[in-house]
Formats: sequence, C-alpha cells, structure tokens
Amino acid sequence: MRIVIAPDSFKESLTALEVAEAIKIGFQKILPDAEYVLVPMADGGEGTVQSLVDATQGELIYTDVIAPLGNQTQAFFGLSGDKRTAIIEMASASGLHLVPLAQRNPLKTTSFGTGQLIKAALELGVKKIILGIGGSATNDGGVGMLQALGARFLNQDNQQIGYGGEQLQDIIRIDLSQLDPRLSSVEVEVACDVNNPLCGPRGAAAIFGPQKGATTEMVTQLDHALLHFSHIVEQQYQRNIRDHAGAGAAGGMGGGLLLLPHVSLSAGVDIVINAVKLDQMIENADLVITGEGRMDSQTAQGKTPSGVAKVAKQFQKPVIAIVGSLREDYEVVYPVGIDAVFPIIRQVNSLEATLACGRENLISAAQNIARLYLIAKHIPS
Amino acid sequence: MRIVIAPDSFKESLTALEVAEAIKIGFQKILPDAEYVLVPMADGGEGTVQSLVDATQGELIYTDVIAPLGNQTQAFFGLSGDKRTAIIEMASASGLHLVPLAQRNPLKTTSFGTGQLIKAALELGVKKIILGIGGSATNDGGVGMLQALGARFLNQDNQQIGYGGEQLQDIIRIDLSQLDPRLSSVEVEVACDVNNPLCGPRGAAAIFGPQKGATTEMVTQLDHALLHFSHIVEQQYQRNIRDHAGAGAAGGMGGGLLLLPHVSLSAGVDIVINAVKLDQMIENADLVITGEGRMDSQTAQGKTPSGVAKVAKQFQKPVIAIVGSLREDYEVVYPVGIDAVFPIIRQVNSLEATLACGRENLISAAQNIARLYLIAKHIPS
Repeated sequence: MRIVIAPDSFKESLTALEVAEAIKIGFQKILPDAEYVLVPMADGGEGTVQSLVDATQGELIYTDVIAPLGNQTQAFFGLSGDKRTAIIEMASASGLHLVPLAQRNPLKTTSFGTGQLIKAALELGVKKIILGIGGSATNDGGVGMLQALGARFLNQDNQQIGYGGEQLQDIIRIDLSQLDPRLSSVEVEVACDVNNPLCGPRGAAAIFGPQKGATTEMVTQLDHALLHFSHIVEQQYQRNIRDHAGAGAAGGMGGGLLLLPHVSLSAGVDIVINAVKLDQMIENADLVITGEGRMDSQTAQGKTPSGVAKVAKQFQKPVIAIVGSLREDYEVVYPVGIDAVFPIIRQVNSLEATLACGRENLISAAQNIARLYLIAKHIPS
Repeated sequence: MRIVIAPDSFKESLTALEVAEAIKIGFQKILPDAEYVLVPMADGGEGTVQSLVDATQGELIYTDVIAPLGNQTQAFFGLSGDKRTAIIEMASASGLHLVPLAQRNPLKTTSFGTGQLIKAALELGVKKIILGIGGSATNDGGVGMLQALGARFLNQDNQQIGYGGEQLQDIIRIDLSQLDPRLSSVEVEVACDVNNPLCGPRGAAAIFGPQKGATTEMVTQLDHALLHFSHIVEQQYQRNIRDHAGAGAAGGMGGGLLLLPHVSLSAGVDIVINAVKLDQMIENADLVITGEGRMDSQTAQGKTPSGVAKVAKQFQKPVIAIVGSLREDYEVVYPVGIDAVFPIIRQVNSLEATLACGRENLISAAQNIARLYLIAKHIPS
C-alpha cells in the first residue's frame, strides 16, 4: 500500500514537512508496512519557500535587501535541491509585517527588495523562479522590483523616480534597455490567486490598498498613478497590462511583472503541484492525505488541499484531509474531491497551548484514522 | 448494515440520547440505508437516570425530599417504560451540590432523602431499583436512608438518633422490624465503582470525607462512628459490613445498603449494560459506536465506553469512540477494545462556546467517520 502525504503547513505551528512527518508517524503505528511518500505542499502563500525547499532537499539563501520603507532588512529565498529553481516569497522582502502599523503608507512603500531577491537568484544561475506575491506592503505596480532589476522609470527631468506608489504618476518614459539580461533565459512563474485588474473599483488600490494603510484619498491617488503607469506601458510597448487578470495582485506587482520577458501568472497551488510533480506521485498511490492549518469554504478556492484533491481525482484516488481547525462552512470541500476531513484538536485550550501540541494532536489523529481504515476493511457492507 | 450507537452523555452539553441522535444524523448522510440502534448509556454516575429513562422510553418522577442539611428540596428519579424498574441517583436527593460550600459538614448531613426516593419508587410497585451513589454530601453510613425506609437506630435512651455522621456513635441498637416490607420483593442494584472498605485509612471518611467538608478531626470522628456502627451490625446480625468491598462508597452508603434484603453492589456500567440488554443489540451489529464527554485513562477503568467495548469484543465487533475531548493518556483504551477514537472539537474556542456547538461538531465528526469508512472499503490493502 502506498500513501502520499501532501499537506500544506499549519501556520504558526508546523511546516508542511513537519505536518507530513507527524501524519506518517501516526499512520506507521498501525500500518508499518505501507510505503509513505511525503510531499510538503504550499499554495504560493506563506510557507511556499520552506515547503519547496523541503520537497526538493534544497536550501534557504539569506540576503540583505531594501525593506518597503527604504531601510535595510534581511530576507531569504529558496534554492531547489537541483539548484535550477529559486522560490521567492515577496513578503520576505516587501511584506506588510516589515512596516510598523503607524508607518503603513503605500504612497511610500517600495517592492525594490523583491527585485533584489530575484537578482540574487539570477546570480546563482537558476533557470526558473517561482514567485509568491502575497502579503505585500506595497502599491507601486512592481516598479520598485523592476528598478532593482535594472529597469529605469524616468520623470520629466529624465531622472529615475523614487520609491513608492505616489511616484508612478511622474513617469514620462520607461527604459528597459538595462534590464538584467539573464531574465531572457529564465522563466518566472508568479503564484497569483486573485484575478483583479490593475485599476478601477476592483483594482489594486481599491481592493488591497486599505489593508496596507491607504486612506480613501490615498486609494484615489494610487489608483490614478497605476492608471498613468499602464498608459505609459501601453504607449511604449502596445501592451494593455491594465485589464490583465491578476495585474492588480500585490499592489500592481502582477502588472509590473508582465514587463519581464518570460512571465506567467498562475494559481499558486498549480505551480507547486507542477514543481513537485505531484501527479506522478499520486498516480501510483492508493491513498492521498492532505491537510492545512484551517479549513473553511476558502479551501475550495484553490488552497492546497483542493489542489491536491483535484490531482488525486484525475486518478480516482481517495483523499483524506487532516486539519488544525475546521470552520462551519467547510463542507464545500467535498465536491472538490476531499472525501473525509478530520480536525486534530483534542481539548479545549488557548490558541497558544493548542498550537503547542499540534504535532502530538496530528500523530494521534493520524493513528486513529489509520485504525478506522483498518477496521472498516473488515466490516461487512 | 446494522450500527449500534451506545454513548454516554457529554456532561454539561448533551444527554446520551442527544449524543446518539447526533451521531446517527451524521452517519445517515453517508450511509442512509444502514439500520441504526440507539442505546443511551451511562455508568451509574450523573446522567444514569436520564439515559435509562431515554433507553426504555420511561419517565422522570419528581418528589419532595429532605436535603442533606434537613431542609426540603425537590428531587427526581426515573421509572422505566415498563414501570418495573426505578433508577435513582443518590445525588438528586443527597448530593454535595445541594449543600452550600460554607455549610459542608458530613457530621451533620443525612442520606435520608435518598431513602425517601427509594420509598417513592416502592409506592409505584417497581420490582427493581437501580441506585447510583456517586456525588453524595454524606458520611452517615446510609443510616439516614435506612431511617426513611422504616429502620430505627436507637441510642441509650431508646430514642432514634438524629441526622448526620456524628450521630452513629450513639447507636446502641438497630431495629429493622419496621423496615418497609416491600423491600423483600425488590432487587436493589447499587452502582458502585469503588472498592473501599467502610473504615480505616482507605475507608469512607479518610478517602471521601475531606471533599465533603470534613477536617482532619472530623475524619477521625466519622471513621470511629462508622466503625462503631459496623460493630453494632456485627453484634446484632453477625455480618461484617466493615470490610465489604464498596462499603465505603458514598460515605458508607455502600455499607448501610447491605442491611436491605436484596442488595448487590456492582460496577455501574455493568448494571446499565444489563438493564438495556446491550449484548443482545450488539450481537447482531456490524459496528458499535460509543462515546463520552471526556476520554482519558480513567475511561479504561469501568466508564461507559470501556464497558460497551467489553461487550462488543465478546462478539468480535469493531468499536469506534467519538468524544468531546481527549486527554494525552487516553491510549490505554485500545487494549480495552476501543479500535479508534475521534475528538469532535473543530476550533479553538472557550469551553462555553465549545459546549454550545457540541451537537453540530458531533454530526460533523460522525459524517466524516462514515465517509472514511466508505472509502476505506475501496482502498486496496
């Protein structure tokens, strides 16, 4: 019997690899002779770097970058075991968590640091970059990121504009002639789970600006600046980045990335599934186990367990999800292909105490699932 | 497929019948054609009356009795659907919860009210009385209970002694001539889960006195009084109630009950199993589901799920437990015959909020167990 264990991380508690290992320990107590294939998964959000590094026996690379407010900070990215793929989470260099609450202001914040991470990956000679763009503090259309990679955004004095979303309104001309030439031979896969356009009422500023600290007035100003930026792009390159689905992700980062030579925007979980070759692993499995820290109706919208289930159902494999917590509205995961769901909490306790015994609870839940599996096989129908 | 659902109540949340019904609802979503047999269970403790009334379609009878401190209170007992069996919880008439914290004093408290409940049951013509003696406020050797049934405990002035454990030391003679004659044709099954003797370092006063409000001095006084009582019994009836296993239960109630004509002390869960004829139901079942509010290592010591599992294993039936919470030390339930255990909590929350969604959590857990059961049958070994 072959069991593929492909969970996401349990946020604030366990990495995806730790989750998979705990599930294996529980199962092995009852089914010691089964073959277990551990695949740490992610959906492009927080934990994607760790999961793909663990899945490929890769490593974490730390490097100094410019934080959203212009100060220095240390960020990291992942390098796959075969050293051909870099995995970057934008939040590591340009995340909201790097900006103190009182200073959150997307007029000022830059995505420059994320560009530095891409550049550092290029230095290592990678052929593919997987970029997760969730959790950003910025609304600069990815202009900071592009600047770090050699692009120049010039104002009417033919000077480079500065950092921050408000600067975009001063762009007169874009100069991509000095863009890092290695980008021509590198594929950039952007994990993007929203389909918002760059501007307008569903655009980056209107939808995501407020949670980054934008007031109503700032939202208007930022939206106009992104619109202006898209007009310049259209004038110079005859490309409409304004209405591209996903261009509005991460403060317009989705749009700015479209200026790179080989870029695709896809659902994060699909990128990860592809990167770890999950289909090959599931094809020969008898049972697939997935999981995540918190399962709810959002899970059916492209989170890891639903992505794993989709692959499993291509091969008619049963899928069990083991989860940290389970919200009332979770039942929409059944039609997506998840056959049964088990929460692991064993006692009423504080969040802190519950997170602290996550591993133990996982092992216990896994053991009992394996036990039920075993007895079910012997109950007459 | 036939499924027997035989859980205990979930204390402070759901009766055993409510638990069984919720489990059935969850299972039926997946296995609508299975036959479900609901058996509300108990172990002689709190909830036993409700469970046996529900299991037999019986009724609750309310009656006024004397509370432990001598004041009036309303208590209840159960009458089985066939009206042949009364089910009494001593705590209803003589429970610790009836005595305010500051007034807890087993020198003074009487079990008289429990005797009144027995008398009320006799008035209804029952042939059997099941008596759970947990949670009492008393240490009177069951003398109060016997007084209510017509027994007389006389002091040196040939007067009846008063209420409370301290009075026992004044007993010179016992007169059972006026004991209710109907007791001769009624079987009293006492649910007793401790094997403490009446007196000494493992006796009623030493072990259970302090939790009823006894100081060290009171414990000594109460222990001497019980010893004196046992000497009088031995003199008059040539019976040693002192060393009888369980005589020390409920402040010596276990010992006092031995003065009734047809009395047996047994493990509570065995009495309930016998009363509901659980073996007959399980014999023809394919799967047995049990449960309780909180499972821990104590569960293996004669609590409902282990009693149910013991019966199930006589017929080699698989047993699944569904529980409100699960303590670290629960794994000792496996050797007892419970094959798999599933806690139902789905989210980190307060105790109050968790109890409030107990029914919903049970339905969800049951549904997913049935789902796993169904897919397990189709996974190759």
